[in-house]
Amino acid sequence: MEEDILSANKLMASRNSGYFEAKGVVALNLMSSPGSGKTTLLEKTIKALKAKRPVAVIEGDQQTLNDAERIDQAGAPVVQVNTGNGCHLDAEMIRQALDKLDVQEKSILFIENVGNLVCPSLFELGEKHRVVIISVTEGEDKPLKYPTMFEHADTCIINKIDLLPYVDFDMAKVKEYALEVNPHLKIMELSAHTGEGMEDWIHWVLGQEV
Amino acid sequence: MEEDILSANKLMASRNSGYFEAKGVVALNLMSSPGSGKTTLLEKTIKALKAKRPVAVIEGDQQTLNDAERIDQAGAPVVQVNTGNGCHLDAEMIRQALDKLDVQEKSILFIENVGNLVCPSLFELGEKHRVVIISVTEGEDKPLKYPTMFEHADTCIINKIDLLPYVDFDMAKVKEYALEVNPHLKIMELSAHTGEGMEDWIHWVLGQEV
Repeated sequence: MEEDILSANKLMASRNSGYFEAKGVVALNLMSSPGSGKTTLLEKTIKALKAKRPVAVIEGDQQTLNDAERIDQAGAPVVQVNTGNGCHLDAEMIRQALDKLDVQEKSILFIENVGNLVCPSLFELGEKHRVVIISVTEGEDKPLKYPTMFEHADTCIINKIDLLPYVDFDMAKVKEYALEVNPHLKIMELSAHTGEGMEDWIHWVLGQEV
Repeated sequence: MEEDILSANKLMASRNSGYFEAKGVVALNLMSSPGSGKTTLLEKTIKALKAKRPVAVIEGDQQTLNDAERIDQAGAPVVQVNTGNGCHLDAEMIRQALDKLDVQEKSILFIENVGNLVCPSLFELGEKHRVVIISVTEGEDKPLKYPTMFEHADTCIINKIDLLPYVDFDMAKVKEYALEVNPHLKIMELSAHTGEGMEDWIHWVLGQEV
């Protein structure tokens, strides 16, 4: 049963990926625990990008339009998807959101997944990159405890580095653990709050082509 | 299909609840995002309780035995359940864990669920109380964005209050949001790291009877 759901999802993800290619749209799937700072990162990223490249956002949440409102204020077209009891976005939800969101050619499309380090990892959306975000307040063992997410991601952002002086967090160790699970993971450290390290991330995003 | 799974789970949860009653065991289901500090809270709680009342722990994680090792060092009998790709504990996993864990009469049994604010909320385990833990680094909108968890919990711990000076977090607002979703929620603030507020929690735990 689980396999049927996953393979139906794979088909739709493949369709989305064709849609993105045709429009020259780079889709980035952002996944993390609740509260790791995805929306703040997105707000800052939109502000840094929007003079240089069109941006659009699909926001996933169990409930509320809060994040969509924040993104709208940051100046990007956005569609909110509420999953109700669902614990992740799937490719069909993205396809439906694309009907409502008039994504410009050559946009960067950020997809903010439901805050959850488990379920979103198995559901492809047709994205170019899968970005997992963790924050330094979460402890360095997360890649080992939630390995599926770190195996299926290709990029990892370690956020909230401004809080490093106040928490027990071993940066060398979290990188070691993450690379143990996935040796090809690209890792960036930053603070969306203070802006430290944001240039590398913005530079990476702007370098993406379909 | 989802309904079938949930009602099969409810039956088994009911059985667990009978088992707990017969042994005078109070089971507490601890649920939160990854990294909210559940395991640190448990370590400190075990140390504070163990002279007064027997304690046992069932640890849920996708992968690793790390948490079970920490609990074992804190001095409580523990069984680790690895859920693999599963995103929550279910009542059958608890029943099987109980076969391996020789829970003493009148114990407090802590069940540390998989770090996930979505899926564990729908799966009863036979517990006396459902405790949701959030930390001040996660932002105050979590009760609104993950309402199912806050509706199904009866107790809420706001952890990491030692980090309040370094983050934007409105304590009054998070309580307002949490009580909006669930007016009966009992809320406690503490820092498992510094020990501030821990007495109230320990007092509450010791006051529990089957």
